[in-house]
Formats: sequence, structure tokens, C-alpha cells
Amino acid sequence: MSSSVLSDWLAQRLDRSSSQPLYRQLQRLLQSAILLKELPAGARVPSSRLLAEELGLARNTVIQVYEQLAIEGYVTSTTGRGTFVANSTPEEFTETIRVPREKDELFAELRGEEEKLSSNSGQLALSRRGARLVSEAGVSKRQLGAFMPGVPDVTHFPARVWTRLHNKYWRRLRPDLLTYAPGGGLAQLRHALADYLRTSRSVRCSPEQIIITTGIHQSVDLAVRLLSDPGDVIWTEDPCYWGLRSVLQVSGLEPRPIAVDEEGISPSLMDLAHPPKLILVTPSHQYPLGMVMSLSRRRMLLEYARKNQCWIIEDDYDSEFRYTGKPLASLQGLDGAGRVIYVGSFGKTLFPGLRVGYLVVPEELAESFATASAELYREGQLLQQAVLAEFITEGHFTSHIRKMRAMYRQRREILLDAAACRYGDTIQAVGSDAGLHLVLQLPHGSDDRRTVAAALERNIVVRALSGYYSDPSRGPGGLLLGYACVPDEEIPVAFNTLADAIDETTVRVNDRQDVPRIKAYVA
Amino acid sequence: MSSSVLSDWLAQRLDRSSSQPLYRQLQRLLQSAILLKELPAGARVPSSRLLAEELGLARNTVIQVYEQLAIEGYVTSTTGRGTFVANSTPEEFTETIRVPREKDELFAELRGEEEKLSSNSGQLALSRRGARLVSEAGVSKRQLGAFMPGVPDVTHFPARVWTRLHNKYWRRLRPDLLTYAPGGGLAQLRHALADYLRTSRSVRCSPEQIIITTGIHQSVDLAVRLLSDPGDVIWTEDPCYWGLRSVLQVSGLEPRPIAVDEEGISPSLMDLAHPPKLILVTPSHQYPLGMVMSLSRRRMLLEYARKNQCWIIEDDYDSEFRYTGKPLASLQGLDGAGRVIYVGSFGKTLFPGLRVGYLVVPEELAESFATASAELYREGQLLQQAVLAEFITEGHFTSHIRKMRAMYRQRREILLDAAACRYGDTIQAVGSDAGLHLVLQLPHGSDDRRTVAAALERNIVVRALSGYYSDPSRGPGGLLLGYACVPDEEIPVAFNTLADAIDETTVRVNDRQDVPRIKAYVA
Repeated sequence: MSSSVLSDWLAQRLDRSSSQPLYRQLQRLLQSAILLKELPAGARVPSSRLLAEELGLARNTVIQVYEQLAIEGYVTSTTGRGTFVANSTPEEFTETIRVPREKDELFAELRGEEEKLSSNSGQLALSRRGARLVSEAGVSKRQLGAFMPGVPDVTHFPARVWTRLHNKYWRRLRPDLLTYAPGGGLAQLRHALADYLRTSRSVRCSPEQIIITTGIHQSVDLAVRLLSDPGDVIWTEDPCYWGLRSVLQVSGLEPRPIAVDEEGISPSLMDLAHPPKLILVTPSHQYPLGMVMSLSRRRMLLEYARKNQCWIIEDDYDSEFRYTGKPLASLQGLDGAGRVIYVGSFGKTLFPGLRVGYLVVPEELAESFATASAELYREGQLLQQAVLAEFITEGHFTSHIRKMRAMYRQRREILLDAAACRYGDTIQAVGSDAGLHLVLQLPHGSDDRRTVAAALERNIVVRALSGYYSDPSRGPGGLLLGYACVPDEEIPVAFNTLADAIDETTVRVNDRQDVPRIKAYVA
Repeated sequence: MSSSVLSDWLAQRLDRSSSQPLYRQLQRLLQSAILLKELPAGARVPSSRLLAEELGLARNTVIQVYEQLAIEGYVTSTTGRGTFVANSTPEEFTETIRVPREKDELFAELRGEEEKLSSNSGQLALSRRGARLVSEAGVSKRQLGAFMPGVPDVTHFPARVWTRLHNKYWRRLRPDLLTYAPGGGLAQLRHALADYLRTSRSVRCSPEQIIITTGIHQSVDLAVRLLSDPGDVIWTEDPCYWGLRSVLQVSGLEPRPIAVDEEGISPSLMDLAHPPKLILVTPSHQYPLGMVMSLSRRRMLLEYARKNQCWIIEDDYDSEFRYTGKPLASLQGLDGAGRVIYVGSFGKTLFPGLRVGYLVVPEELAESFATASAELYREGQLLQQAVLAEFITEGHFTSHIRKMRAMYRQRREILLDAAACRYGDTIQAVGSDAGLHLVLQLPHGSDDRRTVAAALERNIVVRALSGYYSDPSRGPGGLLLGYACVPDEEIPVAFNTLADAIDETTVRVNDRQDVPRIKAYVA
């Protein structure tokens, strides 16, 4: 790649409207070009002055990137001669360049980040939105093990009941259950869900307002495509779930991250002055921090949405698992103006691989959503929906939730005990008990991605809290620990292993003040 | 709605970059406003001069729309006084306005169109892309029955083998099969598929190049989002499958319809001068007309894509069902430059509700596609994938295809015999025998949507060929008849019922020349 070709290529890829700083974008692009040999070993990199000029960047930005690349061994600088792609690329690179998975691991290790699926392989061929999606992907290779967040314990799923129902439907072999789904899903399941949501989540809806999907990702994708156009603004909580951030971005939305406080999403006066098209919130249990949106905040948000004709997407992802106090009503149930789109899924209550979720939409939107879902996704899986409907109406669903709630509550306590045991009374575990994970705050100044990488070397999977923030470099260091899928007896050992990784990688200024804290918010 | 509010509302919704003519957009928007009582009965509609001026349209366009609305009974004109929303709206409208489904049926009947799910209910609340998606949706309420196109016979599916494998995996209860899918899907299935595609479709790939999806819709959605940006042009065949047209439009692509001839997609010199980003084709069996892309056309297309860095999406949707001659190799197998994305599904070979499809992508893109698919869709269903993999490796898949191929061939012949019986030797059935449907050409000047509506009254489901064209008003009148899901003995009776609807609704100038023709192209 010649110098001007490189500049052109970089200019096309730098996204000035992105929330990601330009220097980080530039660094990643240059790393890709080097790893993929578009910039071969020994090639001279344009001078920082020239590149800054051609890209319209501050020269200091380019210098900073070159320095970082030099530290990481991608380039070498010789005073007076210029900057060159390193000859001494580790041998593993040349060995594994054709084996993307291994290269990726090495790459992740290099960056001290968590074990991501993401890689830069082939990104040169992608579109702008595609390259951004892949480079910012948060998805992990691991989906099980201590302490994978968001994954329930699937080993206690009542498999015998499930297969009995399954076999019953297959014996009848009704052709209408094996073909494409009508818009919205199987009527039987929509009825069963309307009853369940009414009694357990105070959601007010008729079965026709329920749209069956493959999960929260598809639910949000559908809502976003039907209710917004590219360039529309959506408020997201900061921090929030990385997966939905990707879904929003790939549909052309402009996410505006809004800070959260103890009462949930907390828009400033400046934010309120610019109403967005959509608002995405987790009122029952803020993801990932865990606080509950207060009643006054709920009323404010509903009133604001009504006045400004915004749509609120209420992500009620794991509200079934609340261990103390009474269950909290949904935002949808408070909404008198028909501005709330409620989304939920069976991924946490039954098992993630099931791929059944649902939207509850205002009456006036029900038919459009049903049509669009059939048109866009051409869904099926009606036999599975029939099995699920009967599973619910026969009472297996609520009794399974009861059983798992008790089990997860216990695991949460075991984990808290293990933490107290290791770190003594400096651990603060306050209030709200809900969900499938805890947030562990790391001492100020710690880089949580280093801790995640160190834990992974010990075969412990945790996720870095900073990665849930719109700007990871400004998010507080912390770890998400999923306890739901870890058997009771494994929790203390796994926590101690994790604690070794924590102690090795975090800043310890003062023994009493700077140990990790278990952070949870009062309901 | 005041006159200026109406103008603003219309101005926001008219999409000048759409391939749909403005007069049709305007007509649909006004119909929505009237049906939803945004323009109440008796309200005066702005004069054609005023509205044309405010919308920047030719006055004739507005006049034409008003005339059409008057014919359909939405408005009445009184000379010298102006145009008013009809007072005499049929009573059914006021009765059913709150029951979208019934209203929709009435609406569809009014327009003489086929039984669509689509309706205008709630469209006022939708975004531009959402309203367009819903109003142009092609999806049908029916998914079974004579002569529903594209649906295989699911009653012969080997349910006992399937449930045996299914129960085996549930008995083992492997947690890793019940959680989220790793990017790309289950390794076991990707291996089985790579073998199958290599031998039966001459697709050249490693298992890593295969990405498991929920079907062709998701496959194309993923490819489009990773390889193109909003505003990029995609060549589509004209006619083509309506479902994918919707998938493309909602992702911001600009479909450029390219005519097909006996050799498949046939870009003009003008088309060739403007290379698109993507090209979507059905080389093995053009959908819905059925011709096969010639070898020279394939070579031209591959060379063109290589030179101009276009991506070709090869939709190989039902290539397993070829009744005469030897199977045709895939375009992907001819591609030396890595420009082809191959997509296929098990919807036609097993059953549509299964929701398993796949992409085969060039090596350099494999990891990006795997990451993006896990990030965007958060797929699961690994237990089902394990069952499917074993179903294939145990040989049940190929033997099922063999059995169904013989059955469909026979049904095709029964249908052709029934047509010949009714219409004598004027029926021309030529050449290429493949797929799950036939195209019946209607006499010149016939409105195929009227025929579809008349057939539906007799409980026969067919689809209008014109609806597959980018401009239905210019597409030739014809019917798609799916024979695969109709038992042998029902075909002749059902065809005669259909023929009554045809005879009642089509133009008959001359007994010998203007009867329907069975149209199929020589392979």
C-alpha cells in the first residue's frame, strides 16, 4: 500500500461522528493494516506530519498513535529516518495469520482485553457499518463457566417434561406447526404470555399486542426499524448492554448515552431540551449496575415521552429474579398514553438457546409489528412455541422460576460470603438483591481489562465493567460476576482464583480503602 | 387535520428516492389518512393545485390520485365546490376500524389484491422506513393449502427419526447445547454442511466459511449490513422475491431492478457502466420465473464482480429439486476471486418452521461474519443444530430429498395434465423442470390481482406474478402455483376451481390465443 493509498483508505474509514475517539480508531486501523500485511514488514509509514495533514487530524494525535504502536511492537522508529513496520513481528504472527482464531487470541492478549470473538481479519473488505460492528463487538467466545454473566443454570431445566410435550406435538404432526409463522407468532403462546405478564409483571395487554420473536435482540431490531429512521437519536443508559448498542448502531440510530444515578436513567436539562425518538431503559433492574428506577423517575419519563411523542423501549430482561421485597411492576403497566414497547425473553428463565422472546406493543401498532415481523424475519418454530405455551399453561414455567430463584439467591449469598471471607469487612454489599450477576468495583485507577485477561489465564470468565460504558476509558473499573450458572460448591474456589487475578493486577494504595468492593444499589 | 398539517405530513412521508412512483405513494398515504379518520368524513381535501404546489408535484399527478380515490369511493368531487372525504364510506369501515384484521381483509378486497397481512393500521405512528416496510409487505396470511408457492410437503417429514435424535440429545442434557451459540453455529453442523455442499452443489469451502443462520432472510440481512452502507446500490433481478426486497430496503440499500432474459440477469450497457456494491441473483433457478443462468452469463458476472469489486449474493433457495437433467453447479464453485456469498436453507428440503439456513462466505470474511452474527442476533438453538447435523451424517437428509424429489416431480406432472385437460393444447409447457411452483401466464391485459382475489374466494391460494416485479403495473399478468404441498389427488380439482376464477376474471379475446399459458424456461 503506497502512502497516498494508505491515507485514502484511512480517510474513508475514520468515522468522525463516532463516539469512539479518532486516535483509537486510527490506532486500530493501522494495527489491522499491519496484521493483514497490507503494510508489510519494513514498509515505511508516512511521517506524522504528512499523515496528520492528509487526514485533517492534529499532528499530536498521529504522534500519540505511532508511539502506542511502537510500544506494542507494531512499528519501530529511527531518529532522522522515520517510522517503519516492525521486522521483528513475533513469529506467531506469521504462523497464525492464516488461522484467524489463534491470531485473534494473541491479538486480544496483546491488548490485554477480554476474550472476544472480534478480530480484524477481513475487515478491510467490510462496509463502514460492518467494520464498526465487528471492531466494536462485545460478544465473547465463552458462554458458560464461572463467572459468565447473564447465563442461567441450564442443568436444572425440566428436560423430561419438555421432551414429553415435544414428542406429543411431533406425534400429531400438524403441518401448520411446521410451516412459516403467521405474523406475531402462535396464538396459543400469545394468550399464555398475556396471562403470565398480566399477573406477574402487571403488563396490560391483549394477546394481539404480543409479538413473538427470537429474543430481545430481534425485538429491539424490529422496534427500531419500525419506529425510527437512520440518524434518529435514541437515549441509552450509560452503562448499558453492549449487544443492543450494536443492534442500534447497525440500524443507523445515533445513541446518546445518558448517565444513570440511584434512581435510574438521569437525563440532564440539556438532554431534556432535545427529545429523542426512542428511549431504551431497564427500569426493573438497571443493566449492568442493578438499581431500580424510582417511581418519580418513571412518572417523569412517561410524561416526557407522552409530551414529546418519544417511544420508550422497556427491556425487562431478568425481572423474574428478585430475591427480597415484592416484585416490581413494569413501566408499561403505568403507561396511559401507549408510548411503551415492552420487551422480554425466556433466555434467562428457561435457557438461552431456546431463542424465544416477545414484544408487547401499543394496540395501534400491533398489526404493523405482526406484519413486519413476518415480512422481515420469516419466522417459524411454531411447534416449539406450542410446546412452550403448554409448558406455561400446565404451570411448569412458574414452578421452574420459583425453584431457580431460590437456587440463585443461595448462590448470590455464597459469592458474597466468599468475597467477605477474602477481603473482610471492607466489602460493602448493599441493598437490592436481584438478577444473575454482581458488580465488583475495583480500586480507583485499576484497568479492569487487565484483570479480565489475568482471570482468563486462570480459566475464570468475567467481563470488564468499563466495556459497558459509552467511553470505556472513562467508565469506572469493575467486574461483572455471573453466579447463576456456577454450582454452589465451585463458587468459593472460583472466587479465590479470581481474587488472585484481582490482587495481581489492581492498584493497592492502602489496604483498607482500596480493596475491591461489591457494589449494588438499594431498591 | 388541517390542510397545511396534511401537506406537512404528506411531505414528510413521500420518499423521492423510492423506486415506487410518487403518485402511488400519495394515493396510499391519503387512503391511510381517510381510513384512520385523520381525514374525517365530509372534510374538504386541499385543491389539487394547492396540494401539488405544497408538495412540489406535477398537478396532473395529484389529479390522477384524486380521480383514483373517487373511483374507489374514498372521496367525492362536486364541480365548483371541491373534493371531500366521502360521507358514504361503507358501513363496514366504521364497524371494523377498531378490528384491524377484518378491516384489512376488506381493504385487500377493495384493492382486489391477494390476501396480505399488511394493513395501514397504526402506520401513522411508524417511521418512514417502517411505514414503507409495512405498506409494501408481501407476506401472506396463509402458509398452507393449494396452491401456496414455496411451501414443501411437511407431512412426509421423517418425524420418528427426528424425535429419536432429539430425545437422545435431551437425555444427555449438555449445557453447552442450551446456551448461546458461538459465532457461526455448531461446528458439527458446519462440517456436515461443508461435505454436503461440496458434493451436491460443488460449493468450495471449509467448515469455517459456513455461518449458520435462521434462514435466507437472516443470511442476506447479515451480508448486507456487513458489506454495504446505506445508499449503496444492489442489483436485484426483476422479477424477484418480495421478502428479500423488503430486507434490502429496510437496511437502506437502493435496489436497482435488472431485467432477466432466458439466460438470467441481463444488465444493459448502461447498467454495466455503474457498478453496484452488491448483486443478488438466483442462478440455479430464477425466482420466480425458473430459468437457469447460462454459463456465459455466469462467467460475465463473476468477471464483472472481480473487476469492479462487487459482492455477488447467490441465493440457491431450492436447487435440490431439479427433475430432469443433471444437477447444476453453483456460481460459488466457479468463482476464483472470492466475490460470491452463497446462501441456502433447509426450509424447502426439510420444513420451513425449522429456521435453519446458512451462508458460505469467502475465507477472508469468515471470522467477521461469525462475530457479527453472534453480536447482532445472539443465536442459540444448538441442540437443534446437533440433531440436524446427525440427521445429515446418518444419511436421512439425502434420502429424504430423493423421496420428495420424486413426489414433487409427479405433482408437477399432475398439475400440467390438469392444465392441459382444461385448456387443451394451447397450454405450452416447455423445458426446465425444477422447483416447487409453476408460473401460469395470463392473457395479455389481465389483472392478475383480480384473479388472485377471485381464487381466494374459492379458497385457492395463488400469488400474482406482477407483485414480484419492481413496478407491478408493468409486470406481465400471471400466477404462481405451488404444487409441492398439495396431495396428488387434490391437484386436479383444485386446478379446476382455480381455472373457474381465471375464466371469470381474465380477458378472453380469442379462444385459441388468449387462454392461460404455463410458462417455464428451457434449462
